[in-house]
Amino acid sequence: MDEPVLLTGAAGRVGQAILDGIGDDYDWRLFDREPPTGDTDHEVVVGDVTDEDAVREAVAGAGAVIHLAGDPRPEAPWESVLRNNIDGAQTILDVAVEEDVEKFVFASSNHAVGHYEPERKPDLYREHDDFHLDGTELPRPGNLYGVSKAAGETLGRYYHDEHDLSFVAVRIGNLTVGHPPIDYERGQAMWLSQHDCAHLFDCCLSADYGYEIVFGISDNDRKYYSLERAREVLGYDPQDNSAEWDGDEKVV
Amino acid sequence: MDEPVLLTGAAGRVGQAILDGIGDDYDWRLFDREPPTGDTDHEVVVGDVTDEDAVREAVAGAGAVIHLAGDPRPEAPWESVLRNNIDGAQTILDVAVEEDVEKFVFASSNHAVGHYEPERKPDLYREHDDFHLDGTELPRPGNLYGVSKAAGETLGRYYHDEHDLSFVAVRIGNLTVGHPPIDYERGQAMWLSQHDCAHLFDCCLSADYGYEIVFGISDNDRKYYSLERAREVLGYDPQDNSAEWDGDEKVV
Repeated sequence: MDEPVLLTGAAGRVGQAILDGIGDDYDWRLFDREPPTGDTDHEVVVGDVTDEDAVREAVAGAGAVIHLAGDPRPEAPWESVLRNNIDGAQTILDVAVEEDVEKFVFASSNHAVGHYEPERKPDLYREHDDFHLDGTELPRPGNLYGVSKAAGETLGRYYHDEHDLSFVAVRIGNLTVGHPPIDYERGQAMWLSQHDCAHLFDCCLSADYGYEIVFGISDNDRKYYSLERAREVLGYDPQDNSAEWDGDEKVV
Repeated sequence: MDEPVLLTGAAGRVGQAILDGIGDDYDWRLFDREPPTGDTDHEVVVGDVTDEDAVREAVAGAGAVIHLAGDPRPEAPWESVLRNNIDGAQTILDVAVEEDVEKFVFASSNHAVGHYEPERKPDLYREHDDFHLDGTELPRPGNLYGVSKAAGETLGRYYHDEHDLSFVAVRIGNLTVGHPPIDYERGQAMWLSQHDCAHLFDCCLSADYGYEIVFGISDNDRKYYSLERAREVLGYDPQDNSAEWDGDEKVV
């Protein structure tokens, strides 16, 4: 991609994993509510995702957007996810179309489908269980944060259908630094390693697609999310698997 | 149902069709932003659906809610559907759970799935075509109003899963007074007669269900929405069919 890639919510955990892994591979423009705390070689725009003027300044000239900004708390109150996540997504999608952005990568969440779990757990977190979600199911959010992420996916569907914007929603699992979650089967089922995270978003910037919903997890034995669309459409080739770890030690 | 039924947006076209058809069959409480223009035998609460206190007053003691209130314009701007339709739906769903409402009937719309049409029209409006939507597909809104209706369906999914509220989304087609739309194949495909409208909402108040998405249309030969769930789960038995009309004249 020749044009800059706008990374919103750049200071968050996912943004840092992306910059750590593929920070040298694109011409980044970082957007966050606060200036970066450390030095950065990248262009920076400071602003709030609900401020249309700031968003327009950030989007102008970008070839792609990775939209991570928003309230990331699963327990966030409705007023916050309504404003920051739902309204924020609509603001930047609308500007992206006006500014002729080619690809829009949306940070969705496992919480958009969290309510498939209660009646099936803990079995669905275990390798023997064959229940899978593949992204074609209707959302069943586990919380209002998950509702807001599902709404963002639907907004993306509209902007794709109406304006031909390439849109991929990545339902991010449990991203950690270092080892997978310990003594937490759900987290091991949806673990996303730092390496696989950066690689997946790299795929989202380089592949060709129309509208996709994919799951952002490593190739965990325990997984109940299908990686088929991510592999087939995006070329995602995850290298990590929570089953290769015993606690904080890699054993395979 | 022994408790009152709250009807929000009672003054609108759907509300009037419901009251005309089954106005004597329930103990209604009407909620709208303006007092009724004519006489009414029903209890009235005046308020806005985004005003939580007004909503609480309206919901208190109701056994069921039919939620029609919101901006009904397919071309409504984002800020209006965000506030009136999305935030409004969350406000009343949240209050409904707190107030132990048993059933929540949500006026969704054909516009939640409007973007399935462009690549298939006009064939999908014709009897020979066998393309059907059955409500299990991911939404493809035709406009931001449709996005807001899809978001309401997802909010209902959350409140059902989390709080066991019985929720049915009725994707209302093209409701008319009298004859079906003339020279408008799409409108004939998704026509909803006054009679069938009132009967369908009657079914939504009397049937037992968990979470459902159904299509609110008559039994039109031209239909591309499945009526299977409405028939099976709700006992919907539509009596009208746009094919029985020639212009404004019933010929069958």
